[in-house]
Amino acid sequence: VRLSSTPRSILTRKPERASTDRADLYAVLDLGLVGHLGFVRDGAPVVLPIGYGRKDDTVYLHASTGSGLVEALDGGDACFTVTMLDGIVYARSVFDHSMNYRSAVMHGRCNRVDDPAKKLEALETIVEHLAPGSWAYARQPSRKELAATAVFALSLAEASVKIRTGPPIDDPQDVRAGHRWAGVLPIKTTFTEPEPSADLAADVRLPPHIATRATPR
Amino acid sequence: VRLSSTPRSILTRKPERASTDRADLYAVLDLGLVGHLGFVRDGAPVVLPIGYGRKDDTVYLHASTGSGLVEALDGGDACFTVTMLDGIVYARSVFDHSMNYRSAVMHGRCNRVDDPAKKLEALETIVEHLAPGSWAYARQPSRKELAATAVFALSLAEASVKIRTGPPIDDPQDVRAGHRWAGVLPIKTTFTEPEPSADLAADVRLPPHIATRATPR
Repeated sequence: VRLSSTPRSILTRKPERASTDRADLYAVLDLGLVGHLGFVRDGAPVVLPIGYGRKDDTVYLHASTGSGLVEALDGGDACFTVTMLDGIVYARSVFDHSMNYRSAVMHGRCNRVDDPAKKLEALETIVEHLAPGSWAYARQPSRKELAATAVFALSLAEASVKIRTGPPIDDPQDVRAGHRWAGVLPIKTTFTEPEPSADLAADVRLPPHIATRATPR
Repeated sequence: VRLSSTPRSILTRKPERASTDRADLYAVLDLGLVGHLGFVRDGAPVVLPIGYGRKDDTVYLHASTGSGLVEALDGGDACFTVTMLDGIVYARSVFDHSMNYRSAVMHGRCNRVDDPAKKLEALETIVEHLAPGSWAYARQPSRKELAATAVFALSLAEASVKIRTGPPIDDPQDVRAGHRWAGVLPIKTTFTEPEPSADLAADVRLPPHIATRATPR
């Protein structure tokens, strides 16, 4: 399966880094936790960090109905980008220094999800992406909480994924010169020990869906 | 020192999360490694991950002169956002789930840096941010490499920083109910063991500026 290649999702630089496999796109979106949403307000670009969730070929976003964000997003053009930084690439030359990363970029319109059942399903997708297991464990949203939340759908129809892995690509002359170190300093992101709220009742245990996510120090 | 508060850098939501201390802004920009740059192309927003470096109240970005990015950025309105995700906030209700994060958002025009001395200084700022010590250690850019690189300056005049820390803020009724866990699952990003290039000469040792950055596993 190939990703669509509209003019704005075709990569003009480093096409060898453009993986066109939809599985890669899904993997980046499913591993990332925060994305960056771009939209145009008063003719100028705005980029904000935002949580999200993916189901099939749709990414769901949510915003408080009290925020200016809802107005800016409703039916408007958006670009949503999720990036994971995997390493610093140290080359023999400063010019060939680089980063190893995985990045998914989606273009499209943010369509508001108003149907109550679909909205609830979208919110479940977002919550389960951020905190798997929380939808079943935590208190469900009240009517008032649902009314305070706007949900948007962004289609994966126009998307691209770019991945850089591996060592630096040095100039052959620099490799032959031989006296400088070259390689990758990998970056790892992990969960650490859960920090219980101070107001937690004494008999409440850490539930398995959080315990299994945490990494022992 | 307060950050400027133009209409687009004033936060309309959760103003209690808006730290107006310039030191916070610097700290986020200095700790982050990749930012997300937003610009408008053919009327639609584009958001791309990009490396950067800060010097005083200027953020420097670079792009290959062969890329469409240079045309899109030159003198155009941009928004540059750097976000660090610090933890998943598990609340007793799905509605109050959140994220702990630090985010810097800058608005302004990308001005091309053409003066050779200033351009070199800007590139040093970018390289030293990505890979401290590399500017002195690695081979300096050739005339050809410099010509292939465009550098842009974005002022910190119009910027905001938003930080969320601490436990979930649950509904008092949910806290009283008492049977659900609430707290934070912290996220930590670390460097791991450096991976030398396969074509490294046998006598080349890992230099201290990289060794000291790496975290033992």
